[in-house]
Amino acid sequence: MSQSMNVVMKEKAEKGGVFTTKEIPVPKSNEVLVKIHATSICGTDAHIYNWDEWSQSRIKPPYVMGHEFAGEVVEIGKDVKAIKLGDIVSAETHIVCEVCEFCKTGQAHICKDTQILGVDVDGTYAEYVAIPEANAWVNPKGVDPAYLAVQEPLGNAVHTVMEGEIVGKSIAVVGCGPIGIMSVAVAKAVGASKVIAVEVNEYRLNLAKELGADVVINPMEEDPIQRVLDETDGLGVDIVAEMSGNARAIDQGLKYLKLGGRMSMLGIPNDKISLDVANDIVFKGITIQGIAGRKMYKTWYQVKGLIESGNLDLEPIITHRLPMEDFEKGFELMESGNCGKVVLYPDSSVLEKYK
Amino acid sequence: MSQSMNVVMKEKAEKGGVFTTKEIPVPKSNEVLVKIHATSICGTDAHIYNWDEWSQSRIKPPYVMGHEFAGEVVEIGKDVKAIKLGDIVSAETHIVCEVCEFCKTGQAHICKDTQILGVDVDGTYAEYVAIPEANAWVNPKGVDPAYLAVQEPLGNAVHTVMEGEIVGKSIAVVGCGPIGIMSVAVAKAVGASKVIAVEVNEYRLNLAKELGADVVINPMEEDPIQRVLDETDGLGVDIVAEMSGNARAIDQGLKYLKLGGRMSMLGIPNDKISLDVANDIVFKGITIQGIAGRKMYKTWYQVKGLIESGNLDLEPIITHRLPMEDFEKGFELMESGNCGKVVLYPDSSVLEKYK
Amino acid sequence: MSQSMNVVMKEKAEKGGVFTTKEIPVPKSNEVLVKIHATSICGTDAHIYNWDEWSQSRIKPPYVMGHEFAGEVVEIGKDVKAIKLGDIVSAETHIVCEVCEFCKTGQAHICKDTQILGVDVDGTYAEYVAIPEANAWVNPKGVDPAYLAVQEPLGNAVHTVMEGEIVGKSIAVVGCGPIGIMSVAVAKAVGASKVIAVEVNEYRLNLAKELGADVVINPMEEDPIQRVLDETDGLGVDIVAEMSGNARAIDQGLKYLKLGGRMSMLGIPNDKISLDVANDIVFKGITIQGIAGRKMYKTWYQVKGLIESGNLDLEPIITHRLPMEDFEKGFELMESGNCGKVVLYPDSSVLEKYK
Amino acid sequence: MSQSMNVVMKEKAEKGGVFTTKEIPVPKSNEVLVKIHATSICGTDAHIYNWDEWSQSRIKPPYVMGHEFAGEVVEIGKDVKAIKLGDIVSAETHIVCEVCEFCKTGQAHICKDTQILGVDVDGTYAEYVAIPEANAWVNPKGVDPAYLAVQEPLGNAVHTVMEGEIVGKSIAVVGCGPIGIMSVAVAKAVGASKVIAVEVNEYRLNLAKELGADVVINPMEEDPIQRVLDETDGLGVDIVAEMSGNARAIDQGLKYLKLGGRMSMLGIPNDKISLDVANDIVFKGITIQGIAGRKMYKTWYQVKGLIESGNLDLEPIITHRLPMEDFEKGFELMESGNCGKVVLYPDSSVLEKYK
Repeated sequence: MSQSMNVVMKEKAEKGGVFTTKEIPVPKSNEVLVKIHATSICGTDAHIYNWDEWSQSRIKPPYVMGHEFAGEVVEIGKDVKAIKLGDIVSAETHIVCEVCEFCKTGQAHICKDTQILGVDVDGTYAEYVAIPEANAWVNPKGVDPAYLAVQEPLGNAVHTVMEGEIVGKSIAVVGCGPIGIMSVAVAKAVGASKVIAVEVNEYRLNLAKELGADVVINPMEEDPIQRVLDETDGLGVDIVAEMSGNARAIDQGLKYLKLGGRMSMLGIPNDKISLDVANDIVFKGITIQGIAGRKMYKTWYQVKGLIESGNLDLEPIITHRLPMEDFEKGFELMESGNCGKVVLYPDSSVLEKYK
Repeated sequence: MSQSMNVVMKEKAEKGGVFTTKEIPVPKSNEVLVKIHATSICGTDAHIYNWDEWSQSRIKPPYVMGHEFAGEVVEIGKDVKAIKLGDIVSAETHIVCEVCEFCKTGQAHICKDTQILGVDVDGTYAEYVAIPEANAWVNPKGVDPAYLAVQEPLGNAVHTVMEGEIVGKSIAVVGCGPIGIMSVAVAKAVGASKVIAVEVNEYRLNLAKELGADVVINPMEEDPIQRVLDETDGLGVDIVAEMSGNARAIDQGLKYLKLGGRMSMLGIPNDKISLDVANDIVFKGITIQGIAGRKMYKTWYQVKGLIESGNLDLEPIITHRLPMEDFEKGFELMESGNCGKVVLYPDSSVLEKYK
Repeated sequence: MSQSMNVVMKEKAEKGGVFTTKEIPVPKSNEVLVKIHATSICGTDAHIYNWDEWSQSRIKPPYVMGHEFAGEVVEIGKDVKAIKLGDIVSAETHIVCEVCEFCKTGQAHICKDTQILGVDVDGTYAEYVAIPEANAWVNPKGVDPAYLAVQEPLGNAVHTVMEGEIVGKSIAVVGCGPIGIMSVAVAKAVGASKVIAVEVNEYRLNLAKELGADVVINPMEEDPIQRVLDETDGLGVDIVAEMSGNARAIDQGLKYLKLGGRMSMLGIPNDKISLDVANDIVFKGITIQGIAGRKMYKTWYQVKGLIESGNLDLEPIITHRLPMEDFEKGFELMESGNCGKVVLYPDSSVLEKYK
Repeated sequence: MSQSMNVVMKEKAEKGGVFTTKEIPVPKSNEVLVKIHATSICGTDAHIYNWDEWSQSRIKPPYVMGHEFAGEVVEIGKDVKAIKLGDIVSAETHIVCEVCEFCKTGQAHICKDTQILGVDVDGTYAEYVAIPEANAWVNPKGVDPAYLAVQEPLGNAVHTVMEGEIVGKSIAVVGCGPIGIMSVAVAKAVGASKVIAVEVNEYRLNLAKELGADVVINPMEEDPIQRVLDETDGLGVDIVAEMSGNARAIDQGLKYLKLGGRMSMLGIPNDKISLDVANDIVFKGITIQGIAGRKMYKTWYQVKGLIESGNLDLEPIITHRLPMEDFEKGFELMESGNCGKVVLYPDSSVLEKYK
């Protein structure tokens, strides 16, 4: 199968990406080869596309971009045990060492020797990708592959929202990019008492509302601290799901977090942040959690269960579906903020079927 | 206010109850007097009405029956701190000692010196009841008092369903009396992946379906073990919420419980039960939890939050609304099993408003 | 009993305290009067004595200082239920509202309407104190009252060390004042794998060693980050118990905290602190906990159980015993840092017995 | 290396074992070959030796017995990543599928496709054994191999004792075979408030005392329910660690378990057991846990950390050290109950060094 395939490459250490061809990979003994049906754009992909500071220090071009996807297994390595030809799979995108203390105790998401699909190794903006069997997640058949692709970032939302009590509790989701709006949906699906979305972009604020946010706050237009306190009998919210990485938003979040509450942080600040540790953390008796990746594979089972519950409507999350060659338009949408999840299709017939 | 009021008394140590009058109670310094708007029938009330073995050993007539209720505070004792005249309250029905280790560490629900409203002291099948301020639960105004009354048993359902992971997990609710159907509703509201109801009474099985059960099983008509395994990829359910107290149902439940799962038991068996501890508990690595009462007051806050979430529809749970003097009809319904929650109204004008 | 007693008063809004007399208090109906056997100096007392910025904004002289103590119940209010004359009691020093959500759900330690003994109301640098029954903690008889007095700050150490997994885990205790050295002792008593003490004062570093610290680090003399990594196979410690409130120490602690670890913060920084949230919190997947007070009364039962275990040796913690009139010497010791716990005795005969 | 080695075989489907020779195994690509320094006798080995009912249904002779061990890695398969020649290893004895939901979510100890060393595949009563790299646990060098061998059953004790709160809590260890006495040692090491040992064999009761049990009860000589209540202010113990599998002992344990307590069951009853579910489980609000195996590999890290703490003295646990050819004497000791852990040495020079 030494044929070529279409891919989006990060070819050079500069802004952008290139639509080109590359040889179809050959799966190793522990790998499966997947024909990709849909692959979606992650914020990380946008960072790499824009070649920001973090990308410059981490990424080594040339390689194939992308990591969120679903597709069909078309070839399997000789040591593969459980995955079968024809299986429809997505993937946990962290390829871990399996032998360290973290990997051996259910904390593989913080394994120090992690390689990330589409970051450290060839990714999924391609017609085919080879992935280790251990990373493949078998999906039910007959489901829109866009929904299957977004399970990976949905896992980040689930990890953040559910890393503590949430049922019957109030939550503020700060920053309503794709994972933020998914967090709104997850919080509603599990019976949060009140879901408050905080976001400066009106498109995304509307998306949050569409996904069920009970209250939406644009902090450019009103004081989020006062508004959250007003919405919570003056007590503040039980949980802040921090998705913005914005210093001011984090500081405000700590002010309107309830005594004894938790702030779960997925957003990545660019710089150091100055915090009032005494008054906002110690005296309030709160908990701050750094959220890294998804729990492997606890989060995947939670995502599966939530989808099966029927309480989670993924449709409004997927706002744009494009042929893969239009990836530049996808990145422009991400830059504008006027989108939820943007999905790319290497195979136009699949796009036709689901758009 | 030394006037008389209508009440349903347990007058004698025999089957039944009597509609009669009694002096309106005078609240003690730490108590509030409540004018009752609605009071619902609990399974415990039915045991007492029917004067079963347990009642004969525990109950000391004469006294006023009933404990699930909502009403308006019309008088307050001089030491009352937070409750105000006009507040609409329900009550935690366990009056505890407040000084033992259990009370001091958030486990008041297992305080040894508990007195129960309508069991040990005068209850709520009455126009008025006096309760300690500490037990009063202030409700929002303008809500159907039947909904407020059933928060108390709803708390048992919440305690059972949520005493471990539930979001995205599968659950079998075994026994679909009022608390069983509430458990179905709670499990759906919090995003359980699949909710299976097991019940022999067709009326209640239909009620379970109406409340969202994904699968209903009548164990008189099919093998519940096989069916549950079929519905769960052969693995069994993550959680069994045991509401039946039935020996055979418990044994079956342990068979179709998943490895590592939990069985949370609220149902009360009449006799000792023979269990295969080696194969069904030890080797399977499961957890069995005895569920006593509601957590005071954690469960009440969970109930409040779930109601606020909007994910919980209480309407189908309340199947019958009767004037209090028709209490005998209520107990007949409970005996037949052909009901969900039966609500009694001491004041016919309230019944008129909400029926 | 309208006689006078010796007390140490904070008389004026300025540095210092005054040894003087005051009328013996009369217990209210829910209070008990305690004859004080021993009362120890807390860091908070030192702040008040030194009249620092925090004290100036919080404290309203004149009033009696002090809150850590043990003594004998000599009079009881008429509504007291469980405490008896002759009981030897200490006290939880937070007097809470009992009606708010926090008080009703086992989080009374963060009740907003808390009054603190010796901070907001008359304290225990006195021959007698009146306290609510609810706050009294009954001790076994025949125990050195100094040990009983220090249960209160020991509760802070227990709350900090045990607010997550600790058995078989490595821990760094940062800042070895009285609660720091108690944290070392607690960590050793519960089987921490390695206990590392970080402190600049050599007296306290030696005390930490005496209490069982496996490693002691003076950050003025060596790089604590490198040393902790060297002591932990390059992985860092599982837990940082932050007792210093020092910005640099907190920043360093986050660097040598293991991936997925927790930092439990009891120390109070004076100013805002600049943290590398992205690299030290989010990517590392760690948890930061603000530790406020002691859990009421879970922590007290844990302290009791640990003392009963015999694994905890309190003797080296108590370094100085003084007659109450020598309180100024006690505060000088606290200022110098050359002490563990300093205990004051209002009654010289008790001091004679135990010194 | 096609030479032969000494082994103890289960040769036939009958009582006993045979000291004989067998070819030294050749490690597969993912395996390591270990030269065994010490191997200890487990209760499971004794069941197999005695050819009881369970063994008859499970064991397929001929094969090499034994699974608890420590030794040196002398050969490694070509795909082995982290284990090196010369490493001193013990092993997790459950060889699991790695692909099921349980394996993927930190519950490999209940994987349905488990194969057990010395039960399903050739074991460690041998001079050499080949094990998968994934199961090898690297030990520090220079430690008595008997201590290293017993880490595996010590893991069962740790799993049982630590599957819930234990620090500062009271515990009854019921059944003081090797894992029972280890549970006593673990409970003392982590600061249990009071450790009560219940056992009918006086030798083992004395061993429990030597390992630190605060109270020892022989239920043939006194009423264990009354005695435990007397020792716990009438409240009962917080935890029962059930190691006996005895129906009467389990029933009694539920009676003297505190309200809200937990019973963690490792012992295997032969038959069904009749339990008073209503009074002993539901109304008491207790938790029963089935304990299967050790958590892979959480428990191993806990064992390591506890040993490093220095709080755990393993010496009294190892009561007998024998050359491997004297295995029959070892099984006689196990049968009599007059032993703690019996360790066999395939190489007499190792025995000489440590006896």
